[in-house]
Amino acid sequence: MAKPTPLSGFPELLPAQRVVEQQVLDTLRRVFELHGFANIETRAVEPLDQLLRKGDTSKEVYLLRRLHEESAEGHAGLGLHFDLTVPFARYVLEHAGKLEFPFRRYQIQKVWRGERPQEGRYREFTQADIDIVGRDELGFHHDVEVARVMLDALRRLDFLPPFRLQVNNRKLIQGFYSGLGATDTDEVMRVVDKLDKLSTDQVRALLVDEVGLTGEQADACLALATIRSTDDSFVARVRELGVEHPLLDEGLTELAAVVRGCAPLAAHADGKVSIEADLSIARGLDYYTGTVFETRLAGHESLGSICSGGRYDALATDGRTTYPGVGISLGVSRVLVPLLGSGALVADRTVPSAVLVALLDDDAREAADAIADALRARDIPCEVAPSPQKFGKQIRYAERRGIPYVWFPQDDGGHQVKDIRTGNQVDADPATWTPSSSDLRPQVVISPSEETTP
Amino acid sequence: MAKPTPLSGFPELLPAQRVVEQQVLDTLRRVFELHGFANIETRAVEPLDQLLRKGDTSKEVYLLRRLHEESAEGHAGLGLHFDLTVPFARYVLEHAGKLEFPFRRYQIQKVWRGERPQEGRYREFTQADIDIVGRDELGFHHDVEVARVMLDALRRLDFLPPFRLQVNNRKLIQGFYSGLGATDTDEVMRVVDKLDKLSTDQVRALLVDEVGLTGEQADACLALATIRSTDDSFVARVRELGVEHPLLDEGLTELAAVVRGCAPLAAHADGKVSIEADLSIARGLDYYTGTVFETRLAGHESLGSICSGGRYDALATDGRTTYPGVGISLGVSRVLVPLLGSGALVADRTVPSAVLVALLDDDAREAADAIADALRARDIPCEVAPSPQKFGKQIRYAERRGIPYVWFPQDDGGHQVKDIRTGNQVDADPATWTPSSSDLRPQVVISPSEETTP
Repeated sequence: MAKPTPLSGFPELLPAQRVVEQQVLDTLRRVFELHGFANIETRAVEPLDQLLRKGDTSKEVYLLRRLHEESAEGHAGLGLHFDLTVPFARYVLEHAGKLEFPFRRYQIQKVWRGERPQEGRYREFTQADIDIVGRDELGFHHDVEVARVMLDALRRLDFLPPFRLQVNNRKLIQGFYSGLGATDTDEVMRVVDKLDKLSTDQVRALLVDEVGLTGEQADACLALATIRSTDDSFVARVRELGVEHPLLDEGLTELAAVVRGCAPLAAHADGKVSIEADLSIARGLDYYTGTVFETRLAGHESLGSICSGGRYDALATDGRTTYPGVGISLGVSRVLVPLLGSGALVADRTVPSAVLVALLDDDAREAADAIADALRARDIPCEVAPSPQKFGKQIRYAERRGIPYVWFPQDDGGHQVKDIRTGNQVDADPATWTPSSSDLRPQVVISPSEETTP
Repeated sequence: MAKPTPLSGFPELLPAQRVVEQQVLDTLRRVFELHGFANIETRAVEPLDQLLRKGDTSKEVYLLRRLHEESAEGHAGLGLHFDLTVPFARYVLEHAGKLEFPFRRYQIQKVWRGERPQEGRYREFTQADIDIVGRDELGFHHDVEVARVMLDALRRLDFLPPFRLQVNNRKLIQGFYSGLGATDTDEVMRVVDKLDKLSTDQVRALLVDEVGLTGEQADACLALATIRSTDDSFVARVRELGVEHPLLDEGLTELAAVVRGCAPLAAHADGKVSIEADLSIARGLDYYTGTVFETRLAGHESLGSICSGGRYDALATDGRTTYPGVGISLGVSRVLVPLLGSGALVADRTVPSAVLVALLDDDAREAADAIADALRARDIPCEVAPSPQKFGKQIRYAERRGIPYVWFPQDDGGHQVKDIRTGNQVDADPATWTPSSSDLRPQVVISPSEETTP
């Protein structure tokens, strides 16, 4: 077999890169569980009719067929999931009788999209989702809760650039458009959402020519979309535009509550996370009905929103019961793969081992294994040298893997351990010696020269 | 949408079941890392020509096709991986220049097989593999090492029934057959391997009629397959059969070394794991060249081998360089899904929360959030009641989820916490109160009445 070539759009990590990803996933899991979110995994496949319910994404789905299936049309109609929301909605309906509501769940899995690979887009990637789903009803305060939980997780990702959570509210913008007198508020929203691709003048022209707004109405819509604030001062600025509508009032109250609820967390995060009401955020065609979230990574704005979500009045429904939900999805691969690929982030070793136990000769293997077992019994990861070589070679073996310590059994039955970074070598007892806690596990290293390269 | 029906062969876990699986996976990861195994994940898909290299499994492969692909034949020829060995071999070849050898890796991922679902067989399931791969050479002692590492992991899975690791060696059986005068030793092995399905008489008839052995040769082959021992006494019993061959000698030495190397671990495992030389084990059509492993779960022998592997002289090769390997693969779903499905194992709560912070009224939410944050700051998972209800209702909310403690803010600004299992209620300070360590995380509960139901 010739050397295989990578598959475009299917990023794979080397061991030292995977350490970074694992630490991110461990932190997410720990924080989500601290907030009472239960973990689930859903199967990778869903019936095609489920996957195609969500509008315009059908082209991205990978279909499955068994190799020796009788005919191409005879397959069971299964496809790989392209997000974790559709499978979660199905899981809630399927298992509703065995779940307690409100149901908080986190889910960290790979998803697949058959789209053309390009910068920051992958065909296989990992997402980390949190959602809270209620039966028939779900208090608004859970919108504040999911924002706080995700901020709490993001602020603990020490080695990543700062995150900015941007929040808006569909009730606010739809109420504003209605208060202005617009009839097709969805259409207004769809056009205003093009502000990230088109100029203000172009969007204004579309609002007038296509949506049929007056110039004055269009200007008000555009003015609304310019409002941003890191506190609830946006409320006064919206009021200054002079539009009135009950739905607008509701949206303003909700958005102010999210921003105020997140502000203390942001204030104590040493700049790692910030919260911003951004009245231009709409989340395009997705079926959100209230709060909407997007998130930017500082210095990597070109990645777009790397953590998005919002409130659905009906995450799922079986006709009799409706399950409202609110959630946020972090694009783990979207954030990490560029930073790992550029070398901006890497672990300081390629193996978990903190210690390499050197091997004097082949007869010494049993004794070396016993030393390793004694260290492992105290949770110190280690490995025994694969073959008896000159000690210099064994030290280089450790160096190439980033293993900080080499353990040398002595001829007299004693032991010494060498920190190969400093050369410092001391007597040690396998039953008591312990490395510093920072040497116990691989550490993530930020390469300053690469840090800003997306 | 009507209530969805489960997909046969795609088992999905409820939150309290997933807790059990997570604890198993956490233990595996911890032990594998203690032994210096680095983690990797490979993409879910491989080119079809890679997947079909391994002989008779082609019918099990799921092919991928993008929904709107121009023609059914125009797809990239990708399929979902059906094990973790084929992808690992490809990963080693693709990234060889960036890996250090011998390379120890563990890999815990889902795999997919398009076979007909039946008892103990799934279309989607999780495997946990460890392998050590060398460049050009790999010392035999690594065979002993992978067996020890897997035993070390299995013995720490407290809540699972005992595991019996059964070992044999292809050199031993092939050398024995050669020493007997058999020419097609692969064919002899293939027929003897049918002993788990056919009677001894039937296998003897096949050896004579189909393979062309004499009755005496066939009897010797069958006698070899009856030998079992938990120490190296099998060597003498093989010698008693009077067959001589250099490959037999090599196989006997290797198998004795594996059994002796694992014996101390088994001896200190309180019966949780045992090791056995079982000279009937052959691992069928797989390309093993020395050590072979199988594993039985006590009381669940009908599951077959739930943890299998062995030595490959060529796990991978690119024509110039050959990568020998040795590894074992644990069928995590194969073991857990039946035990979870029968109710034999479950977690004592459905949420991570150790504490429910009760809510006096809606105005008290901010204070309740502050209590929860104070507990979380000390790594105590908790949640705030979703709505202000009578305290009895809030206690039942906790009960239904298995949350052991309910926190009651007092009117006077003080705090009390109630252990709802005992009813014991005490004053507490959110800055210092800590539950017992066994209450901090969900615990796995073994249901004795269900324990033996596979």
